[in-house]
Amino acid sequence: MKTSSKKDLPVSQIRRFLEPGPIVLVSSAWKGKTNIMTMGWHTVMEFEPSRIGCYIWDQNHSFGLIKASKQCAINIPTYDLISEAIGIGNCSGASVDKFAKFALTPVPAQHLDAPLIKECFANFECRLVEFLARYSFFVFEVVKAHVATAPKYPKTFHYRGEGVFMVSGRNVSFRALMKPQNL
Amino acid sequence: MKTSSKKDLPVSQIRRFLEPGPIVLVSSAWKGKTNIMTMGWHTVMEFEPSRIGCYIWDQNHSFGLIKASKQCAINIPTYDLISEAIGIGNCSGASVDKFAKFALTPVPAQHLDAPLIKECFANFECRLVEFLARYSFFVFEVVKAHVATAPKYPKTFHYRGEGVFMVSGRNVSFRALMKPQNL
Repeated sequence: MKTSSKKDLPVSQIRRFLEPGPIVLVSSAWKGKTNIMTMGWHTVMEFEPSRIGCYIWDQNHSFGLIKASKQCAINIPTYDLISEAIGIGNCSGASVDKFAKFALTPVPAQHLDAPLIKECFANFECRLVEFLARYSFFVFEVVKAHVATAPKYPKTFHYRGEGVFMVSGRNVSFRALMKPQNL
Repeated sequence: MKTSSKKDLPVSQIRRFLEPGPIVLVSSAWKGKTNIMTMGWHTVMEFEPSRIGCYIWDQNHSFGLIKASKQCAINIPTYDLISEAIGIGNCSGASVDKFAKFALTPVPAQHLDAPLIKECFANFECRLVEFLARYSFFVFEVVKAHVATAPKYPKTFHYRGEGVFMVSGRNVSFRALMKPQNL
């Protein structure tokens, strides 16, 4: 597993990494316990302030930690971490220390008690704006973003259902065709 | 531009197509006028009932049509439609008939007044559940899904920012590693 140096990214720009729809790892902490969950149901909601929305099932162990602490970190794994991401989704934080079991390194966040995951390409520190109970939907504000300095386009993985993942493919610029305000 | 025959897909299974994060085309209609917009900020929120959430800026012409009609169709274009998707994002439905300008074929929906886009790989008929004004966020229920019979994994495109799109890459099955309830 590689780890690379990271830079601060303006939080208004995190959509570059979340908008393509990668599977993410959500880390959380409450009363001295940490957890990690694998998640695919998220969307960018705004870039100034920088907001992310995501659905978390109330039966997930992370649900309680995030709801109580009002915060989490959203970490983007690259394809070399797919076995860990699947393994994290297969077990419950109620009985497993996932950082230890999957040999992932917790790194202190700047604005959260929840740890960041060092081995992930990007780490977004998130504070809860509102929990919409009707939909089990969390609206977060991203207050700090750390992103690996290279590569520019990480190889992420995306869930297709039935156990199949799509690995991010080639990148093509259509910049010349687009209105500047749509970039 | 190819069009292929479509089958009905159980609405509980549409997440297979939306969860990887493709750019979608949203079609709408109100008082005899139709429109199409290009959108990347969406998420699956539930599969039974089948719910999708998406952010739509109130300055988009489609915002008014969707809010008034309480419905839209979410259509998934494949990579051969990327020029059309960019062109649709570059102009406003206030002054342009986008079906005509981009030579797209409107197809009547079963449960909506909004037309489906024939050339898209998948068409999801959506009814508004709730509009969350604070976030300009629409929660839709998918009431009918039409999906091309082949290929199983369409070549979708995903936005990376700065005019760069990621084209969906190879598909790898990790089914044997996953808990059945996570499939």
